[in-house]
Amino acid sequence: MISSTRAEIITIGDEILFGQITDTNTQWIGTQLTDIGIRPVRKTSVGDNKQDILDALAEASQRVQVIIVTGGLGPTRDDITKHTFCEYFGTELEINQDALALVTSFFEKRGRAMTEMNVQQAALPKNCTYIPNLCGTAPGMWFEKDNVVYVSLPGVPYEMKNLMEHEILPRLKAKFPTSIIQHKSIRTIGIGESFLAEKIADWETALPTHIKLAYLPHFGQVRLRLTGTGTDQALLEKELQDQVDKVMPVIEEHVFGFDLDELETVVGSLLMQNQATLSTAESCTGGYVASRITAVAGSSRYFEGSVVSYSNAIKMNVLGVKKETLDAFGAVSEQTAREMAEGARNLLNTTFAIATTGIAGPDGGTPEKPVGTVWIACAGPNETFTQLLTLRNDRKINIELTSSYVLNLLRKTILKANLVTKA
Amino acid sequence: MISSTRAEIITIGDEILFGQITDTNTQWIGTQLTDIGIRPVRKTSVGDNKQDILDALAEASQRVQVIIVTGGLGPTRDDITKHTFCEYFGTELEINQDALALVTSFFEKRGRAMTEMNVQQAALPKNCTYIPNLCGTAPGMWFEKDNVVYVSLPGVPYEMKNLMEHEILPRLKAKFPTSIIQHKSIRTIGIGESFLAEKIADWETALPTHIKLAYLPHFGQVRLRLTGTGTDQALLEKELQDQVDKVMPVIEEHVFGFDLDELETVVGSLLMQNQATLSTAESCTGGYVASRITAVAGSSRYFEGSVVSYSNAIKMNVLGVKKETLDAFGAVSEQTAREMAEGARNLLNTTFAIATTGIAGPDGGTPEKPVGTVWIACAGPNETFTQLLTLRNDRKINIELTSSYVLNLLRKTILKANLVTKA
Repeated sequence: MISSTRAEIITIGDEILFGQITDTNTQWIGTQLTDIGIRPVRKTSVGDNKQDILDALAEASQRVQVIIVTGGLGPTRDDITKHTFCEYFGTELEINQDALALVTSFFEKRGRAMTEMNVQQAALPKNCTYIPNLCGTAPGMWFEKDNVVYVSLPGVPYEMKNLMEHEILPRLKAKFPTSIIQHKSIRTIGIGESFLAEKIADWETALPTHIKLAYLPHFGQVRLRLTGTGTDQALLEKELQDQVDKVMPVIEEHVFGFDLDELETVVGSLLMQNQATLSTAESCTGGYVASRITAVAGSSRYFEGSVVSYSNAIKMNVLGVKKETLDAFGAVSEQTAREMAEGARNLLNTTFAIATTGIAGPDGGTPEKPVGTVWIACAGPNETFTQLLTLRNDRKINIELTSSYVLNLLRKTILKANLVTKA
Repeated sequence: MISSTRAEIITIGDEILFGQITDTNTQWIGTQLTDIGIRPVRKTSVGDNKQDILDALAEASQRVQVIIVTGGLGPTRDDITKHTFCEYFGTELEINQDALALVTSFFEKRGRAMTEMNVQQAALPKNCTYIPNLCGTAPGMWFEKDNVVYVSLPGVPYEMKNLMEHEILPRLKAKFPTSIIQHKSIRTIGIGESFLAEKIADWETALPTHIKLAYLPHFGQVRLRLTGTGTDQALLEKELQDQVDKVMPVIEEHVFGFDLDELETVVGSLLMQNQATLSTAESCTGGYVASRITAVAGSSRYFEGSVVSYSNAIKMNVLGVKKETLDAFGAVSEQTAREMAEGARNLLNTTFAIATTGIAGPDGGTPEKPVGTVWIACAGPNETFTQLLTLRNDRKINIELTSSYVLNLLRKTILKANLVTKA
């Protein structure tokens, strides 16, 4: 067993406990700590209540060597974190001149007047190391006591991330000798967790004890995550890669990528490799497929645009779907999906075009075409492929699943078209 | 002070600590508990480690009367929750015949063979009350010991939600006499937290002690949440409403809605009230505005469609933006935004059309138009309004902010157009 530095992430805020905001900070912090070999062993959320925060700090200090606290540093009155830290460490607040200078210049640059509240943001517990926040007005704080590091960060995600990346992670790496933890993920789509588990049971059973497997299902995808621990980084990486190579032949048809690959980044790379372009024609996904594609930086190199044809009029007048097709087969049909994809490919003048049409729900289902009935299509230079999806009774899930399946259909179509080799 | 039932939410899974999946369960559970007057006071996440889970259960049992545990119930081997509950309560697993019947019928309905792993999903600790899961194969479990209720639920969100809604929440309501907690939120956009706080400082200071205010900022919006506690529900509701009425005149220009209102639902209602229709023309948001609009069930009643014109060719050929406009002012300009909105309104034949064009980043910025420069427009029956946004250096945030500001511009334009009154 390798000794490793253990961490706890504490978030403060009634709004998190009451479920009134989505906490994305702790997930991100978890990834970052893991990447530098510090192992998160617990996450704790407490409310804006001094005693609960004091308890959480005291408990965490018994468990771990690194405590990361976020939230509770905004300029308004529900923020009590700094006072609580003073009480915890038995110290008091004083205006930190470096912090005050930074807050002042932040407001000067924006040509805004500073309020007394903003001045108070520069008041810090006397025993803290001040960590400047270059993106906002709430400073970072670093404390050390009895061999435990306490880090306090603002709750605003991009301020917190900036502080972690540029200040906290480098300091943690310097302070703690890290053991080696390596991850390798295989990303699959279109096969359920238990069926995947049956397929790879022999391989899983034969895994060495220092390599652990986890199944992480998420909207039609399952991520197979291998976690290895060891002392020799190069050896560990090779061992993980060998295990991946060993299992791949069994599951290849379901695999769309590895590690941080997403369907939208994988198809982006494939399109660029093939010097090909893409457009979408969307009915039931309502622009969500295009938004996933364009969330990727640099997507303008291969993505031309989209027609969201929520109404039949737009399917006909803009995309050129034939009235006879809609009359004979309906808007949710293989024929309509095909004509939407081919129509977008012509109109927007792209190498590939993908289309979605279906009943996302909660209304609009019929006995023949219940909610969750979706047709997807991908038109390429040689032919058009279609696929019927039979999904759930939930609008959001249906949109999410459809977008993933149509991106996967595109991925397969590009691989089949094999443009570069042909050219 | 009103006594109230306290709850802790425990999630199990290395993948949550390592940040490899997004945990949406605990947020939702937090809302639901709060709504029935049970106060979440802590959230805890631990890894797939028996001792850590045992510790978390024991600690929580000292703090609260209700413990909700999710995760760790899937069919694969990384799931150890059930065994840990056995150890915690000093009991053992046995096949529950009701659970087995349900799992069997689940697979029969889908025409799939059942695996030994699936059979084992029906094995439950002897002391638990079995809670049937009608959406999946992992059962719910209810334990009681020393006046603490322990509920264990599957980690798959829609299975967990179904169990909570139909089984757990009704049982909790029956078991615990709930005190009265009421929330009322005012939702603002386009004003920073500290500026808002200055504006309403007098009102905030004068709030009675049983009404608490929180500022919840999120992507250009700030939610002002009032939380009141009391014994008389009708009185409490009236008191909260009175406070809202009192502060509204001060902040009205920034308020787009209340409570669960979102910009996309607010504009949807306004469009329906005005019997008006909507389309979008999107460049930098890449379909994200349309996807927000169409995420709302029933949006097909007012939303016709969208043209995502990522390339200039599509701006010209499909939306009819003039070549001279693009040459003279560039794609990111007031003139182009205006012609995009008016082009979409004509092409897609709608009452209103909104447009976005900007530099989302990380590349594409120039000294004159840095990353974060965005023009938005809204074309209505009478005139077209435009607005310049000067945003951040982050692609995702810029897309999110642009989508909110353009929906808000639409909201204001509809209110100005005042169609129904005119007709």
